[in-house]
Amino acid sequence: MAFTPLMQDLLAALRCLPGVGPKSSQRMAFHLLERNREGAQRIITTLSAALERIGLCSRCRMFTETELCTICGDSRRDVGVVCVVETPADVVAIEESGVYRGRYFVLMGRLSPLDGIGPEQLGVPVLESQMADGVTREIILATSATVEGEATSGYLASLAHGHRVRATRIAHGVPMGGELEYVDAGTLSHAITARTPMLAD
Amino acid sequence: MAFTPLMQDLLAALRCLPGVGPKSSQRMAFHLLERNREGAQRIITTLSAALERIGLCSRCRMFTETELCTICGDSRRDVGVVCVVETPADVVAIEESGVYRGRYFVLMGRLSPLDGIGPEQLGVPVLESQMADGVTREIILATSATVEGEATSGYLASLAHGHRVRATRIAHGVPMGGELEYVDAGTLSHAITARTPMLAD
Repeated sequence: MAFTPLMQDLLAALRCLPGVGPKSSQRMAFHLLERNREGAQRIITTLSAALERIGLCSRCRMFTETELCTICGDSRRDVGVVCVVETPADVVAIEESGVYRGRYFVLMGRLSPLDGIGPEQLGVPVLESQMADGVTREIILATSATVEGEATSGYLASLAHGHRVRATRIAHGVPMGGELEYVDAGTLSHAITARTPMLAD
Repeated sequence: MAFTPLMQDLLAALRCLPGVGPKSSQRMAFHLLERNREGAQRIITTLSAALERIGLCSRCRMFTETELCTICGDSRRDVGVVCVVETPADVVAIEESGVYRGRYFVLMGRLSPLDGIGPEQLGVPVLESQMADGVTREIILATSATVEGEATSGYLASLAHGHRVRATRIAHGVPMGGELEYVDAGTLSHAITARTPMLAD
């Protein structure tokens, strides 16, 4: 089917959205033009406002419209503990667990020298100045369990050590309620190697 | 996680897209803000242009930026045959099959009196004037095989009959290459009822 250049541009633009391919972009474009022009207008308005007003928190690099994000601006939070994550979605996931009451630091990526992503791009100088502020007692390294995520955590742990800040890594292993049968071999082999004693030896 | 009102608005707006729920809207918003602000700008620009410039073809109600769509404007098409479909996506699907060389008429829905969708909303007066133009020989009813789709086709067939235009319905049955085992009972029962002779009786 020969689409007009404008329709082709629209389909290509919608494919910028994660998980959207040729079929879904057509479905989205047709849906908006056919049945929800008001919704399309809402997307335009809110997305424009978001691009203009949403930036990064000067302290933790989480999305925010103000100088400090809601978490950094919350005085009931423990400012002495910083949980380092790769993306804003990780912050949302940890917040939803409800267990953590410290601050965050969002790297917006992980060390990847081949892609030109070094400490500078991840805001590490900002994090390092926080390690040196005398308030930060511990950084919890919650980067992903990939080669680059581990390398990033290792690098940050050595920086923390230099500033006499405690560095911890989140636990990896079999998910709670997970059946061993369905757990992948890599996770299982880590779970066995990193086993912990159940009673004092 | 307490999102700011603007972020909440953005997530709600993205949920206007078909198939996008709370999780995907967050994934899309974060992706655009974090990694693809240029793509977000493209969505804003092309979607605005599309809303402003894409309307419906005056003859067949397909999306178009001009008075007539590319299909209605194509002089190599057989203007005597009109395939009636429910949505622009149906036009794209039939065009991709490559077998059809007539025109289309897009209802943009189907008869649904309870939702206030009558012949007027589906552009039936326009279609009826085309049935009366002396050029149209046949209308192929390709509405969906649902109760409302069948009712719509039945209604249009009776109109066509009044104008001495031949009305046909696309064939329904077991998909080509389909294994009987995996075909649903409704399709199978129709396929048996609507069986056709293989050799002249």
